[in-house]
Amino acid sequence: MRISVLGTGSVGRALAGRLEGLGHDVVVGTRDPGATLARTEPDVQGTPPYAQWQEQNSDVRLVPLPEAGAHAEVLVNATAGAASADALAAAQVGERDGLVVLDVANPLVFTADGPALSVANTDSLAETLQRAFPRVRVVKALNTMNAEVMVHPDRVPGDHVVFVAGDDAEAKATVSALLGEFGWGPDRIVDLGGLVAARGAEGFVLLWWSITQAYGTYDVNIAVQRR
Amino acid sequence: MRISVLGTGSVGRALAGRLEGLGHDVVVGTRDPGATLARTEPDVQGTPPYAQWQEQNSDVRLVPLPEAGAHAEVLVNATAGAASADALAAAQVGERDGLVVLDVANPLVFTADGPALSVANTDSLAETLQRAFPRVRVVKALNTMNAEVMVHPDRVPGDHVVFVAGDDAEAKATVSALLGEFGWGPDRIVDLGGLVAARGAEGFVLLWWSITQAYGTYDVNIAVQRR
Repeated sequence: MRISVLGTGSVGRALAGRLEGLGHDVVVGTRDPGATLARTEPDVQGTPPYAQWQEQNSDVRLVPLPEAGAHAEVLVNATAGAASADALAAAQVGERDGLVVLDVANPLVFTADGPALSVANTDSLAETLQRAFPRVRVVKALNTMNAEVMVHPDRVPGDHVVFVAGDDAEAKATVSALLGEFGWGPDRIVDLGGLVAARGAEGFVLLWWSITQAYGTYDVNIAVQRR
Repeated sequence: MRISVLGTGSVGRALAGRLEGLGHDVVVGTRDPGATLARTEPDVQGTPPYAQWQEQNSDVRLVPLPEAGAHAEVLVNATAGAASADALAAAQVGERDGLVVLDVANPLVFTADGPALSVANTDSLAETLQRAFPRVRVVKALNTMNAEVMVHPDRVPGDHVVFVAGDDAEAKATVSALLGEFGWGPDRIVDLGGLVAARGAEGFVLLWWSITQAYGTYDVNIAVQRR
């Protein structure tokens, strides 16, 4: 499948590398590939320069956003939430009827009190993207965990889960198939219903943050247990 | 221990009944006990009239809020989030230096899109109560699950957890001891740190709601799994 990942940070890299390894035709889209490749220092979060990652993932081409948009059968939004709408607009996905957009981003902002969301509670990043690009089919998934856990769920033992929300059943099935390739069995993919449920999935990120601090690791995830 | 539960709904009843059963000296506080006992119809959520519950829990006295406040060594806030500050004010807890307030409430409001929170993201109900009553020690816990699961964790199999947040370690220890009496082992009580973490615990309620809808049961809870 032709998959375009928007975003060159640790989440985009984890997804692009894993998808390429699974045999998909993957590009990573960014505003200015030359500038991205020219960076030689880690970013503010300590992520090594993209060029270093590229060396070990030479089959994943880094392309400008319009080329990424044109390439995509599935587009993965792994940009920072605050930049997501602009990135999708630059990728010219507005006219791509039915394009599946897997939105893994969180609208995180950092405050003196810790992380917060720029969109929350009565709206979600995923819904803002769906409204801005009504012809695509946005599916929220994977945003509730660390990048490495997203693509290698067996990093964390147990039957922990991934949540999926979206208004189009076929698009959710496409995403669920990709999740299955990552290692998420059908019983570990929880369909929360329509895209409105992205409010809960995104809102969970604040609790996820506290949990990572409590346990001192990002290799965590939640399981749902029931009677 | 002398425990006062504010709130006569299903959450307050579950907590009061269980605490009384464990041997504590429990009262339930409400604005107008006579009016509460006079009701003969289920409420809008289908909860049976309080008088019916009282018959089976006759050791739990229903008292006016000021009496509940005076009785409390530990005060449990099980009122609706929108009414919590007024209820604590009416219970006259403002001068009760060091009183442990176990806040299990959620600031839920219902919108056309489903549940939302009246306080969220950059603040929480628990923090608003702590600011309004700076002399008490607010501990957030148990708000992430159904009332029956709160007090009988073994209703749901597995090692699912309860989160605790608060600024005072001793108050959290008092609450954790009560949680232990309910059946929450030490390894299933996750200390999220300061009361600011109540933002995540309360924000989780939107995801919890979607999970209950996905599985068709309120007898659910989450476990934290880690590498």
